[in-house]
Amino acid sequence: MGITIEPLGARVLVRPLEGEEKTSGGILLPETAREKPQQGIIEAVGDEEEMTTDLKVGDRVIFPKYTGTEIKLDGVDYLIMDESDILARIKE
Amino acid sequence: MGITIEPLGARVLVRPLEGEEKTSGGILLPETAREKPQQGIIEAVGDEEEMTTDLKVGDRVIFPKYTGTEIKLDGVDYLIMDESDILARIKE
Amino acid sequence: MGITIEPLGARVLVRPLEGEEKTSGGILLPETAREKPQQGIIEAVGDEEEMTTDLKVGDRVIFPKYTGTEIKLDGVDYLIMDESDILARIKE
Amino acid sequence: MGITIEPLGARVLVRPLEGEEKTSGGILLPETAREKPQQGIIEAVGDEEEMTTDLKVGDRVIFPKYTGTEIKLDGVDYLIMDESDILARIKE
Amino acid sequence: MGITIEPLGARVLVRPLEGEEKTSGGILLPETAREKPQQGIIEAVGDEEEMTTDLKVGDRVIFPKYTGTEIKLDGVDYLIMDESDILARIKE
Amino acid sequence: MGITIEPLGARVLVRPLEGEEKTSGGILLPETAREKPQQGIIEAVGDEEEMTTDLKVGDRVIFPKYTGTEIKLDGVDYLIMDESDILARIKE
Amino acid sequence: MGITIEPLGARVLVRPLEGEEKTSGGILLPETAREKPQQGIIEAVGDEEEMTTDLKVGDRVIFPKYTGTEIKLDGVDYLIMDESDILARIKE
Repeated sequence: MGITIEPLGARVLVRPLEGEEKTSGGILLPETAREKPQQGIIEAVGDEEEMTTDLKVGDRVIFPKYTGTEIKLDGVDYLIMDESDILARIKE
Repeated sequence: MGITIEPLGARVLVRPLEGEEKTSGGILLPETAREKPQQGIIEAVGDEEEMTTDLKVGDRVIFPKYTGTEIKLDGVDYLIMDESDILARIKE
Repeated sequence: MGITIEPLGARVLVRPLEGEEKTSGGILLPETAREKPQQGIIEAVGDEEEMTTDLKVGDRVIFPKYTGTEIKLDGVDYLIMDESDILARIKE
Repeated sequence: MGITIEPLGARVLVRPLEGEEKTSGGILLPETAREKPQQGIIEAVGDEEEMTTDLKVGDRVIFPKYTGTEIKLDGVDYLIMDESDILARIKE
Repeated sequence: MGITIEPLGARVLVRPLEGEEKTSGGILLPETAREKPQQGIIEAVGDEEEMTTDLKVGDRVIFPKYTGTEIKLDGVDYLIMDESDILARIKE
Repeated sequence: MGITIEPLGARVLVRPLEGEEKTSGGILLPETAREKPQQGIIEAVGDEEEMTTDLKVGDRVIFPKYTGTEIKLDGVDYLIMDESDILARIKE
Repeated sequence: MGITIEPLGARVLVRPLEGEEKTSGGILLPETAREKPQQGIIEAVGDEEEMTTDLKVGDRVIFPKYTGTEIKLDGVDYLIMDESDILARIKE
């Protein structure tokens, strides 16, 4: 399908990982009294001149739960959020 | 009709898409517990020297619901909002 | 009458348009749940070195309702507000 | 009497106008639901290097009510306030 | 006694004036609904490179009531406060 | 195991020390009415160009309790937090 | 004992003075309705490039009560706080 979503400014488009996909690799993001994290895959990045990280499409990242704005495209849920909301990148 | 609305500073004029027009293209903006997004078309842009994006008239964009100030011109609803409120551009 | 009001800094003096005068030209500013806009005419501008727009005396502008400070001069109501409070200029 | 009050930084000393003195010249500052303005005369200005306006002693100015700190000198009430609190200068 | 108090950064040490001493010179600081001012004498100034005023030891100043931190030295009350809290200097 | 967590921006990954491990070395972090501190070991640091400290992997550090976002990797709890949340480094 | 605590950034490590030690020298820090001050000795300073004062180990200082994070080392209580929280230095 020919639709692409281009984040504006220093924003990224993230596909959140759910359930089994999320625990593969041995990382578990516990739901405790602290700020809750979530995993996802970077699907698009915004304006390179405004971004300060080198986040790239395909990066597996951790971000706080309830961050960003939800978009559903062809039945898939995405999140648009500020680059600075991404806490860490996971490398395997 | 000879009336044009010129947004000031880093603002844009947006015509929000409603109903069927909004779901064409396979994108769906779900109303969940998160921040609610909405689609629209850029109808005018503000001062180019103050704007940091390259948003152009005709761009299809996503922005959080309840953003901006409503204006009705010849029976059509428009929104004036800050350029930085635009989350992403949709390309088909 | 020889009294003039000179806005200080990046402020403008606006004469708000009411009733019929306001709807001429086909623009209607609906009162909904969103931020309420209002129309007016720029009657004086502040310090040009501090202003970032090119707003001029006579410009017809849109600004959020309940913005600015009211002044009554010779029976006419005016508003003093920050230049950045002006959302857009209307050109006919 | 040899006492002078020297405002510090970008502050001004204002003698508020009351009653008849205030309405001379045709300006009326109505008390409505909006921010309430008041008239006064500049009696002293602060550090010229820190001030961004050219407010001078003797200028007749408008400022929001309930702004500044009250001082009484020889039975006369004055207000010390930030230069940026002054909305406009009145010229006759 | 050999103890001195050296304010750090852009702070000053002030000895507040009370009662009769405070009203000498014809200045009265009324307690009204507005911000309440108080008089005092500058007893020490902080880092000259960080200070933007030329406040000097011995200056008689006005500052808002309930500003600063109280210190009692040899039975005398002092206040340590930010230089920017000083509203005006009184010259006789 | 081949998974590494790379903190983004000026963030660090910390493994908090618990129980006996935490009191070795004579330091005790009391739980009082003040802000509660906790000890940990730096396991990864973020973007060196954005960081202003020289925190290194292996550093033993003190940080306020309830700071950061929890991640569990292979059964071990970690925290991702801003570099500026680290209060002090402990050297033995 | 070979443990040292190195404050990070523009922070200092302070050993608060209590009881008789605190009143020696004639200074008394009254507990009133204002912000409450406390005395202490600087035991360690942070990154010299980030600090703007010349606070040195051994300096006797005044800081607001309930400032900083408590650490207990070998039975002695310390506080880690921002350099800018230190109000003044006491010289005898």
